[in-house]
Amino acid sequence: MLNRTVFFISDSTGITAGALGKLLEHFPRTHFTQVRLPFTDTLLKIQHAQGEILQVTKQDGGRPVVIMSLGDIALRNALKQSNAYFIDLFSTFIDPLGEELDQMPLTGSGIAHSITRSSYHDRMEAINYTLNHDDGMTNSGFEEAQVILIGVSRCGKTPTSIYLAMQFGIKAANYPLIPEDFERGTLPAILHKHLDKIFGLTIKPERLHSVRSERRPNSVYASLDNCRKEITTAENLMLNSGITWADSTSRSIEELSAIILEKINHNV
Amino acid sequence: MLNRTVFFISDSTGITAGALGKLLEHFPRTHFTQVRLPFTDTLLKIQHAQGEILQVTKQDGGRPVVIMSLGDIALRNALKQSNAYFIDLFSTFIDPLGEELDQMPLTGSGIAHSITRSSYHDRMEAINYTLNHDDGMTNSGFEEAQVILIGVSRCGKTPTSIYLAMQFGIKAANYPLIPEDFERGTLPAILHKHLDKIFGLTIKPERLHSVRSERRPNSVYASLDNCRKEITTAENLMLNSGITWADSTSRSIEELSAIILEKINHNV
Repeated sequence: MLNRTVFFISDSTGITAGALGKLLEHFPRTHFTQVRLPFTDTLLKIQHAQGEILQVTKQDGGRPVVIMSLGDIALRNALKQSNAYFIDLFSTFIDPLGEELDQMPLTGSGIAHSITRSSYHDRMEAINYTLNHDDGMTNSGFEEAQVILIGVSRCGKTPTSIYLAMQFGIKAANYPLIPEDFERGTLPAILHKHLDKIFGLTIKPERLHSVRSERRPNSVYASLDNCRKEITTAENLMLNSGITWADSTSRSIEELSAIILEKINHNV
Repeated sequence: MLNRTVFFISDSTGITAGALGKLLEHFPRTHFTQVRLPFTDTLLKIQHAQGEILQVTKQDGGRPVVIMSLGDIALRNALKQSNAYFIDLFSTFIDPLGEELDQMPLTGSGIAHSITRSSYHDRMEAINYTLNHDDGMTNSGFEEAQVILIGVSRCGKTPTSIYLAMQFGIKAANYPLIPEDFERGTLPAILHKHLDKIFGLTIKPERLHSVRSERRPNSVYASLDNCRKEITTAENLMLNSGITWADSTSRSIEELSAIILEKINHNV
């Protein structure tokens, strides 16, 4: 394994720069140490960053990757005096995009993740909604939901719902399918009029058994046999109600959310 | 206002490409319609995307911006036959980075947001932890917390905690400061031994009054006078305990999280 350090240097949160850090996963033979330097908005802080760059270069035996988002051109140029591999969001993206749009970009700091973005309030509303409609906590307010996730207990409904809310501002309720639903053999009445926004999650019995065993070891609830039975019944129930579902066993909440958004045809 | 459409076209979730969408905020004079086309992993789907590109070009009176992440070079080249302004994550970032690292990048789809990433399990654990330690829900398990947010009710502790967990895999508990803490004039005993990981949030009284009024209109709880009193007392309490705090009034959860991470010196 090679060692390399990656700096995310931003005059604001560094979150957009940080998101590009995901691209490092394309290089599994290198071990990356990630260092965030947000709010780097003065020459003094730039100099501090340059000190760190010098130090890790010696430690790693190779120059670091610097993913940078600095609106101020003087700070940008100062930082680039260091020896590093620079990915500069301004010169790579924002400035060329400005030429395409025939428009000068705003260069102040904190533009991308400001509270003044129109979508911010919607996202906060969605998070509140989702937390208040987690795990069948309440039976009211489903009219407001943009999606209702259903599935057996511990199949991934909660983190997926929260991700949909936090990332995309989607009001995502979730509702557990429980033994009494299985006995009745139909979806709860409360869900009948919302079939168009219901999306199912399922999971492999072995994985569910392992997840539930962490919570309640040696219980009937966690037993492989019970997990198998619940999952088969839940899938039949969703099949009979014409509900699309996805298997969460080997999918991240990001992947599940992308599938769900595609299904509900939501563009963000 | 100019109208432009932005496509996020990916062979996987499109989340990394989507994160770059934040950069569009630098161009406030253009109204962007954002269209996500995840899982675009066949020539047929590329052709479908090209149809959409053609259509919006007519509607908008200008070619769209296409932010693309396609591992397969044939699909990449096919898409680029369209007339659009392309931001290609592979040719702009991944391939040049591979040269810097002297390493061929993986080009399969779904590398960036796969469940197999080492950090994924930690993030899921952190989300569970944070949901189970929200709003002083339990007094146990603070040893495990990496940060404990405190502040008056409705000052933004919950969404900030969840963001820290979801985005950075930080186990973030949160604990509300309530009237009985104010009467006693000290932090709750349970927090005393965790002072080093406590971070405070505060908020402007007018804003708190407005947030609380949405929940419980015309209550003492929501009254401007009570909000003022609670905030002053909470700030004094934090000051006396040597706790750093940040004002959430005009800061997004992304900005608050960046400040908190810097304080707890966490690199991700």
